[in-house]
Amino acid sequence: MPETSAAPVTTPDAAYTPTDRTVPTRSAKRAAYDHETVHSILDEGYVCHLGFVRDGAPVVLPTLYGRVGERLYVHGSTGSRPLRAAGDGPQDDPGLAVCLTVTHVDGLVLARSAFHHSVNYRSVVVHGTARQVTDPREKREALDALVDHVVPGRARDSRPASARELAATAVLRLDLGEVSAKLRTGGPNDEPEDLALPHWTGVLPLRKGYDAPVPAADLAPGIGVPDYLRALAC
Amino acid sequence: MPETSAAPVTTPDAAYTPTDRTVPTRSAKRAAYDHETVHSILDEGYVCHLGFVRDGAPVVLPTLYGRVGERLYVHGSTGSRPLRAAGDGPQDDPGLAVCLTVTHVDGLVLARSAFHHSVNYRSVVVHGTARQVTDPREKREALDALVDHVVPGRARDSRPASARELAATAVLRLDLGEVSAKLRTGGPNDEPEDLALPHWTGVLPLRKGYDAPVPAADLAPGIGVPDYLRALAC
Repeated sequence: MPETSAAPVTTPDAAYTPTDRTVPTRSAKRAAYDHETVHSILDEGYVCHLGFVRDGAPVVLPTLYGRVGERLYVHGSTGSRPLRAAGDGPQDDPGLAVCLTVTHVDGLVLARSAFHHSVNYRSVVVHGTARQVTDPREKREALDALVDHVVPGRARDSRPASARELAATAVLRLDLGEVSAKLRTGGPNDEPEDLALPHWTGVLPLRKGYDAPVPAADLAPGIGVPDYLRALAC
Repeated sequence: MPETSAAPVTTPDAAYTPTDRTVPTRSAKRAAYDHETVHSILDEGYVCHLGFVRDGAPVVLPTLYGRVGERLYVHGSTGSRPLRAAGDGPQDDPGLAVCLTVTHVDGLVLARSAFHHSVNYRSVVVHGTARQVTDPREKREALDALVDHVVPGRARDSRPASARELAATAVLRLDLGEVSAKLRTGGPNDEPEDLALPHWTGVLPLRKGYDAPVPAADLAPGIGVPDYLRALAC
């Protein structure tokens, strides 16, 4: 995997270099490599599907992630299998080969023909080597990014991790080097000979957002819903 | 992988047998193996993340799926890489080792401590060997299941695949044998010493559903939104 330095600011014209495994064999016109598209898809989500190989077989697990510049972070218990597999994180550690995928479904595409049914989506696939973060400052920054990725503004409105909690949490870093986005937008693409068929055709858009926050049973009276949550649940 | 025969009817008490790789190392109490839980999670979704190994490295791609009894189906162009990798489908074909994961996020769990932040989710992880479907009848049934999985009732209200389209579509079958579900529900689990902290705590539920259907630009006048779509978009 190409090494990428952390770049906190996105250069507008910057793009990831396509490789054999980031150029799709099909629908290549749906692929994108520019930082802006990739970052916007990554920043809209918070659950990724992390793939790795264990005993020669693929494993895909859902997990939270955060982004800091050109680095993605995932975390877990130090006892969890993927994090144990990534080793203890010395600089010469081989790390863990991973594929991290983030997908947003935007709508269902109903064509007149069964064959042309599709889904409008935006996805990012990151190939690379995940490595344990050992620097305590980077680890804290990564965990803050994970919390703020899910609910922007939340990290500063919660008790920071204690030394014991930090020690119990493993953080993996994955540099954004070998990356591609794939997008489908728009309506159905029916065959010309199907246009007169009597089937309804169009797109069913997914509803996005949140319902009203549900306070915990033991929330003390007088603690209202904070503004950063109201901004999400509207 | 244990071989499983197709069972169109779910036996209430039936469960998948746990294996080394379907018993989680952490939070084992969140795991479930009963058919009812697994099927309900699978049937609520339509996009899975399919993992396989290519040149020794993991690959995770989002794709649609359908379920017929104890079989899952995914499809794609006959030219796509995972489907080519699964071979041409004779009975003695080795198939493609895959991990198919389906995840629903139900809510964001905001604890008083950053450490105890979490997500309410339901996921299913299927390990197994995917094999090409060569029987034309099973292939048609699988493609109908894929369309009806996304929009129940849609398969019969669209033009069925032609012989040419069927030939251009590869379908992979994955038997439900080595399967587990994992679920988190409920509110935050804060430490007793954090209960007096002044942070709002609770759950932010995700909004589920669809917005109003958007007709295609070339939809003929007089073709209204069918009932099975109205039932989804409410």
